[in-house]
Amino acid sequence: MIKLLITGGTIDKCYNELNGELHFPQTHLPEMLEQTRCTLEINSEVLMLKDSLEMTDADRKILQQACAISAEQQLVITHGTDTMVQTAEHLARQPLNKTIVLVGAMLPYKIGGSDALFNLGCALTAVQLLPHGIYITMNGKIFDWDKVHKDTTVGVFK
Amino acid sequence: MIKLLITGGTIDKCYNELNGELHFPQTHLPEMLEQTRCTLEINSEVLMLKDSLEMTDADRKILQQACAISAEQQLVITHGTDTMVQTAEHLARQPLNKTIVLVGAMLPYKIGGSDALFNLGCALTAVQLLPHGIYITMNGKIFDWDKVHKDTTVGVFK
Amino acid sequence: MIKLLITGGTIDKCYNELNGELHFPQTHLPEMLEQTRCTLEINSEVLMLKDSLEMTDADRKILQQACAISAEQQLVITHGTDTMVQTAEHLARQPLNKTIVLVGAMLPYKIGGSDALFNLGCALTAVQLLPHGIYITMNGKIFDWDKVHKDTTVGVFK
Amino acid sequence: MIKLLITGGTIDKCYNELNGELHFPQTHLPEMLEQTRCTLEINSEVLMLKDSLEMTDADRKILQQACAISAEQQLVITHGTDTMVQTAEHLARQPLNKTIVLVGAMLPYKIGGSDALFNLGCALTAVQLLPHGIYITMNGKIFDWDKVHKDTTVGVFK
Repeated sequence: MIKLLITGGTIDKCYNELNGELHFPQTHLPEMLEQTRCTLEINSEVLMLKDSLEMTDADRKILQQACAISAEQQLVITHGTDTMVQTAEHLARQPLNKTIVLVGAMLPYKIGGSDALFNLGCALTAVQLLPHGIYITMNGKIFDWDKVHKDTTVGVFK
Repeated sequence: MIKLLITGGTIDKCYNELNGELHFPQTHLPEMLEQTRCTLEINSEVLMLKDSLEMTDADRKILQQACAISAEQQLVITHGTDTMVQTAEHLARQPLNKTIVLVGAMLPYKIGGSDALFNLGCALTAVQLLPHGIYITMNGKIFDWDKVHKDTTVGVFK
Repeated sequence: MIKLLITGGTIDKCYNELNGELHFPQTHLPEMLEQTRCTLEINSEVLMLKDSLEMTDADRKILQQACAISAEQQLVITHGTDTMVQTAEHLARQPLNKTIVLVGAMLPYKIGGSDALFNLGCALTAVQLLPHGIYITMNGKIFDWDKVHKDTTVGVFK
Repeated sequence: MIKLLITGGTIDKCYNELNGELHFPQTHLPEMLEQTRCTLEINSEVLMLKDSLEMTDADRKILQQACAISAEQQLVITHGTDTMVQTAEHLARQPLNKTIVLVGAMLPYKIGGSDALFNLGCALTAVQLLPHGIYITMNGKIFDWDKVHKDTTVGVFK
């Protein structure tokens, strides 16, 4: 059983037709999982839906506690890419003895040409195969949390 | 460096507007890889483009040899799902000392709601993390080649 | 009020994941109309769901009668492109005193890059503006039924 | 020959992966026209690419002059929906003796479930069939410019 903790980020961004801005009316993860034909047992939970630039220490505390109390040993966290590394660092402060994979997207799931489903596939596979620790899967690569940064000039994790 | 061997299958199926049938005018893998923002070094090669129900022993021989001569130790093979297990079995007859992951899709990449990108993410991640052997990644799961079959009544690998 | 008579054709073709062939499990017109944010009053009716190459004289008789008994003066018919002109000719044999627009698609609605929604927009607009008669809207053009043919070598109506 | 004047609006909005905001890097109209398989002769021109809330009187002056000097008698204008009626009113101040149809979208072309292609089909059909005057095509309906407003609470033209 895999725990899927949802925090928002670009994956879940949506166009608001009434005001022309981006917002987070709801998560798309259930719809995404259905599209993948994934038969893994996944226990999803929406912790928050926000741009990762707006994540506070309080949000990260909520996320950390959700990781800590999770009965599952394999956790995937959807997260905005801008502060994903910062959140990973936050989670690493306390020993969790679990395999935790953070993942996001550069383009929202709902926009043509999105990388969201690919990235989700990477994260759900990595979490099944990796030993305990905190990781980030982006751009097809698997990174240890403390050996990665987002190059914001090109929008790529290195 | 990952070797990507392309053989066709549902992933690459396309609608032929002139006669209303499905065909394989070209592979979509380069377009898919671009969409994924994948920064892995991937060496792609199209071996054939066919429905896996039409794969012959000669085709499987070509595939086996491409695996054998590949300088890369990590290989992903795109393949139709109907005979994917049969091909995996064929590849397993000779020791290859490489990590080989077969992957396909239930719905073509070009059709709305496809699982192709998700599955590709699973395969490219699995091939980086698994020991030598032959595997199939479908439905979010990672299978040893000799412990899986496609349940054709529901279209799911078990 | 516009009558929408649905007969199938490429618009409604779908990929059958279980056998890898194209089929017509149901019409997509309600989903399409929802996507268009169309606020016209439209009375939809599925007469049949088939490839127009398989339409019989009996099918055309059913369609003709549906047109004849329709209380609405404005009718749009979705139809496969291969025999669309032939069906229009059939409908023209009896005076209907209505505005009838036939429309189809070169690529199914469910496949990326489809012309289906565009064509539907053309048909629903044309039927509101044209005098009584039988027309075909394809490739952005409005044709009188007796001044058009499908050039099957390039898949374009002329 | 139809003149297509492009001013931006939701149709052309795009997600900027580097900063997570919506922007207008280029118009999608050529790509859209290709997708439609439209064989009409269309002469496209990008006048500006902006959210219609940011259109100034100077912008509307540019648009009006482009309409006035156009050799074509049939003009379609892509425009943001928020001030589309206002721009139509501006254009109506001077007699143009042409058929002008304004059109936009509630959801960008690049976002799944967009109404953009449908609306484009409506506009390109309406402009071929309507007498001289200024019109708006949205939600499948054809409106005289002075008998329509956008109900911003539900995002529908009435």
